[in-house]
Amino acid sequence: MANTVFSNFPAVKFEGADSANPLAYQYYDAERVVMGKPLGEHLRFAVAYWHSFAMSGSDPFGGATIDRPWMAAGDPIALAKVKADAAFDFFRVLGLPFFCFHDADIAPGGETLKETLGNFHTIVDYLEEKMASSSTKLLWGTANLFSHPRFMAGASTNPDPDVFAWCAATVKHCMDATKQLGGSNYVLWGGREGYETLLNTNMKQELDQMGRFLSLVVDYKHKIGFDGQILIEPKPKEPTAHQYDFDTATVYGFLKKYGLENEVRVNLEANHATLAGHSFEHEIATAGALGILGSLDINRGDALLGWDTDQFPNDLWTMTMSMYHVIKAGGLGKGGCNFDAKVRRQSFTEEDLVAAHVGGVDMCARAFLSAAKLVEEGKYDALLDDRYAGWKTPEAQAMLTGKVSLDEIAAKAESSAINPQPRSGKQEQIENMLARRIYS
Amino acid sequence: MANTVFSNFPAVKFEGADSANPLAYQYYDAERVVMGKPLGEHLRFAVAYWHSFAMSGSDPFGGATIDRPWMAAGDPIALAKVKADAAFDFFRVLGLPFFCFHDADIAPGGETLKETLGNFHTIVDYLEEKMASSSTKLLWGTANLFSHPRFMAGASTNPDPDVFAWCAATVKHCMDATKQLGGSNYVLWGGREGYETLLNTNMKQELDQMGRFLSLVVDYKHKIGFDGQILIEPKPKEPTAHQYDFDTATVYGFLKKYGLENEVRVNLEANHATLAGHSFEHEIATAGALGILGSLDINRGDALLGWDTDQFPNDLWTMTMSMYHVIKAGGLGKGGCNFDAKVRRQSFTEEDLVAAHVGGVDMCARAFLSAAKLVEEGKYDALLDDRYAGWKTPEAQAMLTGKVSLDEIAAKAESSAINPQPRSGKQEQIENMLARRIYS
Amino acid sequence: MANTVFSNFPAVKFEGADSANPLAYQYYDAERVVMGKPLGEHLRFAVAYWHSFAMSGSDPFGGATIDRPWMAAGDPIALAKVKADAAFDFFRVLGLPFFCFHDADIAPGGETLKETLGNFHTIVDYLEEKMASSSTKLLWGTANLFSHPRFMAGASTNPDPDVFAWCAATVKHCMDATKQLGGSNYVLWGGREGYETLLNTNMKQELDQMGRFLSLVVDYKHKIGFDGQILIEPKPKEPTAHQYDFDTATVYGFLKKYGLENEVRVNLEANHATLAGHSFEHEIATAGALGILGSLDINRGDALLGWDTDQFPNDLWTMTMSMYHVIKAGGLGKGGCNFDAKVRRQSFTEEDLVAAHVGGVDMCARAFLSAAKLVEEGKYDALLDDRYAGWKTPEAQAMLTGKVSLDEIAAKAESSAINPQPRSGKQEQIENMLARRIYS
Amino acid sequence: MANTVFSNFPAVKFEGADSANPLAYQYYDAERVVMGKPLGEHLRFAVAYWHSFAMSGSDPFGGATIDRPWMAAGDPIALAKVKADAAFDFFRVLGLPFFCFHDADIAPGGETLKETLGNFHTIVDYLEEKMASSSTKLLWGTANLFSHPRFMAGASTNPDPDVFAWCAATVKHCMDATKQLGGSNYVLWGGREGYETLLNTNMKQELDQMGRFLSLVVDYKHKIGFDGQILIEPKPKEPTAHQYDFDTATVYGFLKKYGLENEVRVNLEANHATLAGHSFEHEIATAGALGILGSLDINRGDALLGWDTDQFPNDLWTMTMSMYHVIKAGGLGKGGCNFDAKVRRQSFTEEDLVAAHVGGVDMCARAFLSAAKLVEEGKYDALLDDRYAGWKTPEAQAMLTGKVSLDEIAAKAESSAINPQPRSGKQEQIENMLARRIYS
Repeated sequence: MANTVFSNFPAVKFEGADSANPLAYQYYDAERVVMGKPLGEHLRFAVAYWHSFAMSGSDPFGGATIDRPWMAAGDPIALAKVKADAAFDFFRVLGLPFFCFHDADIAPGGETLKETLGNFHTIVDYLEEKMASSSTKLLWGTANLFSHPRFMAGASTNPDPDVFAWCAATVKHCMDATKQLGGSNYVLWGGREGYETLLNTNMKQELDQMGRFLSLVVDYKHKIGFDGQILIEPKPKEPTAHQYDFDTATVYGFLKKYGLENEVRVNLEANHATLAGHSFEHEIATAGALGILGSLDINRGDALLGWDTDQFPNDLWTMTMSMYHVIKAGGLGKGGCNFDAKVRRQSFTEEDLVAAHVGGVDMCARAFLSAAKLVEEGKYDALLDDRYAGWKTPEAQAMLTGKVSLDEIAAKAESSAINPQPRSGKQEQIENMLARRIYS
Repeated sequence: MANTVFSNFPAVKFEGADSANPLAYQYYDAERVVMGKPLGEHLRFAVAYWHSFAMSGSDPFGGATIDRPWMAAGDPIALAKVKADAAFDFFRVLGLPFFCFHDADIAPGGETLKETLGNFHTIVDYLEEKMASSSTKLLWGTANLFSHPRFMAGASTNPDPDVFAWCAATVKHCMDATKQLGGSNYVLWGGREGYETLLNTNMKQELDQMGRFLSLVVDYKHKIGFDGQILIEPKPKEPTAHQYDFDTATVYGFLKKYGLENEVRVNLEANHATLAGHSFEHEIATAGALGILGSLDINRGDALLGWDTDQFPNDLWTMTMSMYHVIKAGGLGKGGCNFDAKVRRQSFTEEDLVAAHVGGVDMCARAFLSAAKLVEEGKYDALLDDRYAGWKTPEAQAMLTGKVSLDEIAAKAESSAINPQPRSGKQEQIENMLARRIYS
Repeated sequence: MANTVFSNFPAVKFEGADSANPLAYQYYDAERVVMGKPLGEHLRFAVAYWHSFAMSGSDPFGGATIDRPWMAAGDPIALAKVKADAAFDFFRVLGLPFFCFHDADIAPGGETLKETLGNFHTIVDYLEEKMASSSTKLLWGTANLFSHPRFMAGASTNPDPDVFAWCAATVKHCMDATKQLGGSNYVLWGGREGYETLLNTNMKQELDQMGRFLSLVVDYKHKIGFDGQILIEPKPKEPTAHQYDFDTATVYGFLKKYGLENEVRVNLEANHATLAGHSFEHEIATAGALGILGSLDINRGDALLGWDTDQFPNDLWTMTMSMYHVIKAGGLGKGGCNFDAKVRRQSFTEEDLVAAHVGGVDMCARAFLSAAKLVEEGKYDALLDDRYAGWKTPEAQAMLTGKVSLDEIAAKAESSAINPQPRSGKQEQIENMLARRIYS
Repeated sequence: MANTVFSNFPAVKFEGADSANPLAYQYYDAERVVMGKPLGEHLRFAVAYWHSFAMSGSDPFGGATIDRPWMAAGDPIALAKVKADAAFDFFRVLGLPFFCFHDADIAPGGETLKETLGNFHTIVDYLEEKMASSSTKLLWGTANLFSHPRFMAGASTNPDPDVFAWCAATVKHCMDATKQLGGSNYVLWGGREGYETLLNTNMKQELDQMGRFLSLVVDYKHKIGFDGQILIEPKPKEPTAHQYDFDTATVYGFLKKYGLENEVRVNLEANHATLAGHSFEHEIATAGALGILGSLDINRGDALLGWDTDQFPNDLWTMTMSMYHVIKAGGLGKGGCNFDAKVRRQSFTEEDLVAAHVGGVDMCARAFLSAAKLVEEGKYDALLDDRYAGWKTPEAQAMLTGKVSLDEIAAKAESSAINPQPRSGKQEQIENMLARRIYS
């Protein structure tokens, strides 16, 4: 194996909760069987190519702080291979089962569409080679339709149909590559599918363009026999002032409008949830209730900041309740937990990058174990069931299933002089119960 | 006419832009014909019974500051009539064509459901009498399913089916009364239809309860031959931590899920829009694009505060662009502009209440006149059309209407070596153009 | 002892981390010696009279849900005594060392200033009696200068000097009472000391009124020989649109302007911190750095909501780091941890109230124990010290203490061709280290 | 004059409110005398070198969209001169009296401190030459101590004292250059003077470093006889999670702590105000009340977005009230109105840049004219004075000036049985009055 910036890092091992080794897992024991399945198969962790290998540490007020060998001047294809070598070495260090990528993360753009696609396939073939001798698989592929200036006014929602066509060509090849590499999902994030100002925007036209684009993607999936999931990743705003995939509920309405609700699911990100005014748990529970939970992007935001900070998770409560709702929704299926998280720009060393992932993996693993225990114990679920127990009577079911009309319900309510009595919502008692379980 | 606290106020008249009379309209000339219709019929202004006659000026940290005769101790039915007399006298002063009410605004609650409904119908009959000699009609009626403690855990989404039944009975009678009074719409605002904490909530169960409730309402509308619109009023949060009718896009998805998108529209409020992270214009444009624009609640929020301030509007830009999107969506139809706005708690005098409405009416009227001029001039629309002109070619239309597949588009893009070129979005130039028109 | 609504609750006991009793302390062992002092003396927990005994569960959209015997109709003084009996019984149940009150929490207002003050002293005397046979002491007293309509335009900042005088009279008597009851602190929270709109406000005039008022309070403290601390409680907004005591840094500038920085400290509340855009830790660290940390109001906000939710704390990370900064600032001294937290309006039972406090106490106790361990272990502090170690050289100290001028520093930097090299900020490694300690 | 990208633009002229020329001023008549002084001398407009000439249109999710000749490859000094030529040609087009710059905007960095400073002085000399034949002067100079990775952990607050020394050298030379070019002010914006995480921060140490640095700057100002103002520009967060210069009130406390309140004033930016939770008017009024108003950065934020959008202003109400508070504070003195505003990344043409400034200048000019009229008319001020008139009595003045003690005030209040009566705050009536004046 090539010498890389990660060569000196031994593989991170599970050492148990008492380990004092900062680069060991205390909770992530991939083989441990929980709820009938190894922990690793529940969580399906993935490394994000972009944040781990393509990010320079720049921010809107400052330049690059992170410098890796493949960011130097040189032949772009050769450098892309150096990057890929390092990526797979990093996968070795963490021992995680998946990775995710955008086309632009893995291969250099070209002067023309043709050259760009050519570069892309060159590196996709190289990744295929690397994967042959690696245990890390592809969780999902996606196309970067937001960074290049040609997308400044939108990708599929661009006022210029040539940009739509460019996007179609790009996504077609990215889907081909995802299939070629055995990917489990194909993701669309619409970072420019929205508006910077409503003042120059025809919203109906743009929604129809986006609906058509998604239909084309779904049709193509079936045409090539790709058996992964198609996922939309909601985000409310940033980079634009408004993005059409605002949140799970909005995406659901969009899918229903274009008849795609059985074809497409959501890839949910913690920080995108909070930017939309929701908790991560809320978005997962909503997707569960609507039957469109697909996959997770693991990170955290800063509730006091108004932009996507994409930090590594460190809130055990939020993560545990998120995993609880994943379990209640039936698990992640073909989806997984992708670390869409980046080290801070002052954390520019390779050690920072490794440590950040170790901490993130362990936080999720511990959260999942706690959530599984909560479900298995059953006390919390019983408490919830009991709250709604009144709805199990035949009379209540008749109302819920539409067997009685509004005026019939009214008549009965009036004649029987109902007088519903308050019952405690017990929020603090539930919080205490959960605190004892989560923080134990 | 009975002597009321508004008896000393003469009717507010249109006096033109040069009037120095603070209690005259400078812009609201109801008879002025704009775009083929009198201004008054475009805007269909309504006074909100609750904020104007039922509000006491209390806030979470302070008690009542507003004291009206009908708030004193006494026979509740007699006091409700004093309140109604004052209300109709206030309508006389402002000369506006509509009003809106909740059951709880107009009539006192009783000890039992029966007594509550009895009180309600007594006052509805009294209002019917008042309306016979007034030119003010009912824009919409609604039920207050949020203030009483019985609704603390939800109305139709309550874990207790008896509360659902109570709500059904109440709404049945409110719909009857709305029909009796010739109302143009019936509104549902779900202030408790959400959760205070996800921790004790079964979201799927609650959504199904709410979907069923709305279906019952729609069925009953048809049964009694009420020819008004059924409207949902979105709000993201407050009083709860999350409300299911978060925003227009969320409500659209909800309607699609329960098959009600052709039966129900939205009543949009400016301050609810901003609490959801949207501009008022955005919500109107979204409802227009989705075909569910119903009516407007006129007010403004404070962008620096995190709760519903329900202030009277004073931002001419926002209001003009809102009216522009109303016009583009085909107007308000059976809907109207309801002043869901309240005077500050320091503004406790009757004069404050009259003046606030005069300012609000004039702000909307001026905004509508500007928006109409913008549309009639056509320059702004032309600029927008031009931006999307590329989509009018047969090739572009083929992509948009699904006549070509993803791989066909890709093949053509590759073979023809497309290279889309940037075009300015001209945001600042458009803003300058609009500033000159709006502030002229 | 009188029979109260809490009579059936046995005293809550420390039972250790393995206790399955939901109404036992798992961590709060008041006698346990930590860092040389019993845990109880570090934390100095207090029950807030208002949230625990005066709150009805109403919110801006809904009425009272909580009903206690002393909220019924009847002789107000007699009812105030029933309330006081219940309060002291509640203190017995929790076994906490302190309580806090506003004048309006404990005694009914009267028709006149004289009657109001008379009622107040009647109940203060009654509390004095109760305290004689209780182990619970007074952490602080304060005056409610925000609820009554007379304060709607400000308390000391009111445009009407008579309101200023009313406030002076009220605070004088509240300070007397606080001294009489052996209180450790006297607190001022300026809920109306700000503006609802800048449009009708003379800010300089109001700041001068507020500065004068605080000087009067400080002078009176010395005059009567009250040896407690005078504390200001910062809050940025709500109920007003802007409050002058925005946050710790703002209060510091205010104190400096009026020469009171050695006389007055801050009482910091978690939810007020987040409303100001800061973490609780930040506010504590800032007060520590500026030398004005006085006391804490314990609660939590909801980062997704824009108002003061005053929930009971459940975030172990935040609380641990808050306690860490308390320790680094030298502890709370005469201050303490007051539960300025309220049960949700659906949590209307007495059991909810007891449980909420048990959970909150335990969360703080556990957090303090973790923070103390972190400090005693020393590894984290060492890491921080090491980060700034460069400043310990004589050359660096010369720059820091003003011994060299800007041009001298510049000349040396140029001649020695300094070229500072990046060092990792290690945020994720520190977070991992802390996660292992906090969640262990 | 050299041929530049702006050569084809004729000078923008004042043409009056009826002009249909989009590139003419409708309100900005620099020579028009208002309140005894030409409008141009009140407003002292400046072009910001960075946003107008150094910005590429990139954002955190996308690359450069703006391409100017000086951004091409080539000799950096020669390119910097091409940029300067274009800048002065742009000043000619707009006819504005001032510009502002950071060292890094005008000159390329070098490999070493020496080379960097050498480049800087080369271009400063070139600017001096350009200024000799231009009517545009320097409003202020400043140093960019945030973009280069060496500042990633702070500038003067860096844990590494060598970075402090680097900053000292840089600021020394920037102050020299500002003096050489006849600048009216020297500004410090602490974009990295804060923390990304409190977890690795010693706040007290960092505040002391920053206080020392500012003292060095003030001392050096006196040493070289620079007679401009030293200004701090508050911003609460972004790029860091917390910046020490949070807002005006915080800066005031900081200045008081280090004894600099008579030496340093604030440069206030609209978008920084809103990020801190304040209106622009609030920050100006606060600086006026505290006596530290220095200068303005003109732009607007987007209240629905959580980052600094730096858009050109288009809200006439906010700008008018801002100008009102500037006038009430005695005007801008040596300060001015600097367009710290940038075109959107889709607005990449030179025409967009010119038009944006034309619109911004006109918006400010119109706002100032309205504000001046408001002041001259006197009705609004009279209304405010009347609100506080009660404080003019000798008794009230005695309370305000400290001639009576708390207990004396209390005794009098009690004996005279004061009973303050409510007076309307008249917010809506004032808003109506202002709306008629602002939008006329």
